[in-house]
Amino acid sequence: MSNGDIFVGELIGTAILILFGAGVCAAVTLRFSKARASGWIVIAFGWGFAVLAGAYTAAPLSGGHLNPAVTLGLAVDTGVWDKVWVYILGQMAGAMLGAVLAYLVYFAQFQANTRKGGTTEGTVDEPVPTLGIFSTIPEIRNPVANLITEILATIALVLPLLALVGNNRHVEGIGIGQIAGQGEGIYGSGIVILLVALLVVGIGLSLGGPTGYAINPARDLGPRIIHSVLPIPNKGTSDWGYSWIPVVGPVIGGLLGGVIYNAAF
Amino acid sequence: MSNGDIFVGELIGTAILILFGAGVCAAVTLRFSKARASGWIVIAFGWGFAVLAGAYTAAPLSGGHLNPAVTLGLAVDTGVWDKVWVYILGQMAGAMLGAVLAYLVYFAQFQANTRKGGTTEGTVDEPVPTLGIFSTIPEIRNPVANLITEILATIALVLPLLALVGNNRHVEGIGIGQIAGQGEGIYGSGIVILLVALLVVGIGLSLGGPTGYAINPARDLGPRIIHSVLPIPNKGTSDWGYSWIPVVGPVIGGLLGGVIYNAAF
Amino acid sequence: MSNGDIFVGELIGTAILILFGAGVCAAVTLRFSKARASGWIVIAFGWGFAVLAGAYTAAPLSGGHLNPAVTLGLAVDTGVWDKVWVYILGQMAGAMLGAVLAYLVYFAQFQANTRKGGTTEGTVDEPVPTLGIFSTIPEIRNPVANLITEILATIALVLPLLALVGNNRHVEGIGIGQIAGQGEGIYGSGIVILLVALLVVGIGLSLGGPTGYAINPARDLGPRIIHSVLPIPNKGTSDWGYSWIPVVGPVIGGLLGGVIYNAAF
Amino acid sequence: MSNGDIFVGELIGTAILILFGAGVCAAVTLRFSKARASGWIVIAFGWGFAVLAGAYTAAPLSGGHLNPAVTLGLAVDTGVWDKVWVYILGQMAGAMLGAVLAYLVYFAQFQANTRKGGTTEGTVDEPVPTLGIFSTIPEIRNPVANLITEILATIALVLPLLALVGNNRHVEGIGIGQIAGQGEGIYGSGIVILLVALLVVGIGLSLGGPTGYAINPARDLGPRIIHSVLPIPNKGTSDWGYSWIPVVGPVIGGLLGGVIYNAAF
Repeated sequence: MSNGDIFVGELIGTAILILFGAGVCAAVTLRFSKARASGWIVIAFGWGFAVLAGAYTAAPLSGGHLNPAVTLGLAVDTGVWDKVWVYILGQMAGAMLGAVLAYLVYFAQFQANTRKGGTTEGTVDEPVPTLGIFSTIPEIRNPVANLITEILATIALVLPLLALVGNNRHVEGIGIGQIAGQGEGIYGSGIVILLVALLVVGIGLSLGGPTGYAINPARDLGPRIIHSVLPIPNKGTSDWGYSWIPVVGPVIGGLLGGVIYNAAF
Repeated sequence: MSNGDIFVGELIGTAILILFGAGVCAAVTLRFSKARASGWIVIAFGWGFAVLAGAYTAAPLSGGHLNPAVTLGLAVDTGVWDKVWVYILGQMAGAMLGAVLAYLVYFAQFQANTRKGGTTEGTVDEPVPTLGIFSTIPEIRNPVANLITEILATIALVLPLLALVGNNRHVEGIGIGQIAGQGEGIYGSGIVILLVALLVVGIGLSLGGPTGYAINPARDLGPRIIHSVLPIPNKGTSDWGYSWIPVVGPVIGGLLGGVIYNAAF
Repeated sequence: MSNGDIFVGELIGTAILILFGAGVCAAVTLRFSKARASGWIVIAFGWGFAVLAGAYTAAPLSGGHLNPAVTLGLAVDTGVWDKVWVYILGQMAGAMLGAVLAYLVYFAQFQANTRKGGTTEGTVDEPVPTLGIFSTIPEIRNPVANLITEILATIALVLPLLALVGNNRHVEGIGIGQIAGQGEGIYGSGIVILLVALLVVGIGLSLGGPTGYAINPARDLGPRIIHSVLPIPNKGTSDWGYSWIPVVGPVIGGLLGGVIYNAAF
Repeated sequence: MSNGDIFVGELIGTAILILFGAGVCAAVTLRFSKARASGWIVIAFGWGFAVLAGAYTAAPLSGGHLNPAVTLGLAVDTGVWDKVWVYILGQMAGAMLGAVLAYLVYFAQFQANTRKGGTTEGTVDEPVPTLGIFSTIPEIRNPVANLITEILATIALVLPLLALVGNNRHVEGIGIGQIAGQGEGIYGSGIVILLVALLVVGIGLSLGGPTGYAINPARDLGPRIIHSVLPIPNKGTSDWGYSWIPVVGPVIGGLLGGVIYNAAF
């Protein structure tokens, strides 16, 4: 596939991923949202179905990686590295676009983040910190522990994903090369993309507790850039001091996932 | 397929959609329901499986659009416009029928909406407003913001849906023309309808917070008409002032979804 | 298939259905259960996956109806009535066996239903009524309304189920006759049984609020018989006065579902 | 397949299973986890998708049993016993590795289990018992009842699983021998592994209340060994007095599941 197709596919797919993903965080976080405080099960399924929507949309154009860690894991596995930069460029652009779209969907809620007065939840409404809608924040700030969490959670994404696609190759005659290089038909008859989406739900449920599971450098860095420039009332810090961990951790995890897959399978 | 098949298919399918969809809203809203106050996860999965049940039932007769926004998006994509009116007619009729059926399922609960006295939740029972069971209500009333939310949420439905069906065409040899014009086999071996249903769950989880995600003109307008005529005790306003937004927004979103799909794929 | 295969298949499948279904009700209801008070989403998914487990196990022997309403709906559709009695006999026996198995899984919890003293939920522990673990109880006791609810909820099961299986016939060459008469391969490659299970989840979420969605005469009557004979401490009433509604309603709903399917498709 | 492939496959697959499974228990249990106290639905789906991730990864190497009870049930069914020891060895090693990985993901949270001071939940933070993250603990300590619960819950896993795989054989030409001996393609095109994962979700929802559903000797014993040696602050007892029940119960249940399947099908 052409560089243009790859860029457009990853742009649209990652934009959908972040529209849904930042959207569900906004839904659970912001006042005047019907889903406010609806819990971790909503977050985890929301991000899983974000992957479903984004990956299936992108699949015919770019294969639907939506994640530099996945692109790197596939590159390690296949040895094909020359298009990696196009993928990552599209993913970053898409992640930023998606964050803007989620902001627009929740525009009135973001504007209401200054309101004071009586709500059902207390006598005075403090503004809600908004960074957690866009990017990840650790519960305990410990760089080594946070990095290990992100590395392991990303391996837990990339290794089963490579195995899923690799198994599919045996069953449906779809090669891994198609994923890295051609994309069309990557997810076969649809069941593989569903399994990947549910895998992401599982990572959220199981491994998201400490850091909020970035497991994707573009998912965290792109929306953080947007958060830092958007005119959100009382938006709070963009926390650039932490921002390297959800980039470096998933990059290491993606590469290690590819190495382990190649060694074991 | 014949106009009669299309009308009957969309009538039955949309009736099932609204029976389940209004049903889950009644289940969560009304007193004396076992599912009362069971949360946003119940709402989102309830509407998703409503699509599953309705679309699969309608598929062999009409293709199972169940939504004027989907019909319009497919018409933009295929250029086939002559049956659009039959689809929308069936969808509106079905949405009204489904609202009546949901009312019948929860008949005793609706009648009990006048009761006063001791329940487990307080010393005096105020009647519950009932419009939210039938149609959508924004959390913050802001026409421009509400319209943008509905447009973007509908694009987030129609664009992946067109890509899903389009991808399926490559894999299983099913053409988009079949969806717009013939319907039989539209959802292939079942996996596509499941992915569409989970996409709708995802839209609810992620994008439903501000307006309650109509994303379907018939889903909102049909039940609103029924709400305004049904003899429900203490039913409250039918809020006709807001009613144009969940019609106009999804129409624009459906058309834009088709345009974007055609431009990118 | 032979009458013996049908009986054994429906016996095992319905026993699994009720083991899981009564099990999830026990899990949510009884003290000293890790899932106590975990909400309606747990009930609805629990019953849906109960169908998944039971139907798939029974499928090669009997087709996996597990429900007289389904058997009757299929008989109306196909006109084949001579094996109906074997199906219903197996379903009733299986439902009773499953209720005993669920009782055994939660034996210590049932025995502890007499305990008094300090728990985390209050200073005095009153025994929990246990009928709701075995059979359905309406929130508002209104025979006409309850009957209408059960009829409509059962139509909402049988009509999409017939359409699902019928659609599958077009796609995978599986005839409805196989479901009524032979069973093997009824659920094709597995996706159909998954869709049926999720349909049951949806019925629970959307239509279960008023009566607890029996939608299956054997599911309600068999465990009620077991409840009335088991030596459960402080088990409370078996409520025979209500017991005809979750039998008559689903029978009418199953027959009507078959009639509507035949008329429309 | 070779003994080496079987060992490596079960090692990796069971490690992923326990990483996700112990992970979700840590997520719900530990302070400073975003998923704290998010409920039984999170536990049940977390363990189900743990099976999904682990089994699919292991499938091409070993068939993806991940559970001595499954291996024993398949051995009873097929009569092939000579590789059983390799499977169980890999499963035990993998379960221990997975417990270490989950500990590393939640390292900072485990370290914070000593903290005192103000949190949102009270004025003094008591350390949380940690065994429940690694192994199962009964709600009511009653060896006979606990054993019966584990036996029945394991039969409820193994019998449908054998039927699922056996049915798949008819549909897709995959023999049970492949599962016990060769593994590659065990889960066909992916739908079977999804159904097995949802079956495990169902067992958790329905049958997990009394004992926490070990239903897998390696899943309980391996992490318990790790719990007893890891330097976790205030970790509490490893409860070796109970440890035989989640080993013996699932072993009996797996064997009985195989016997019942052979007798009925």
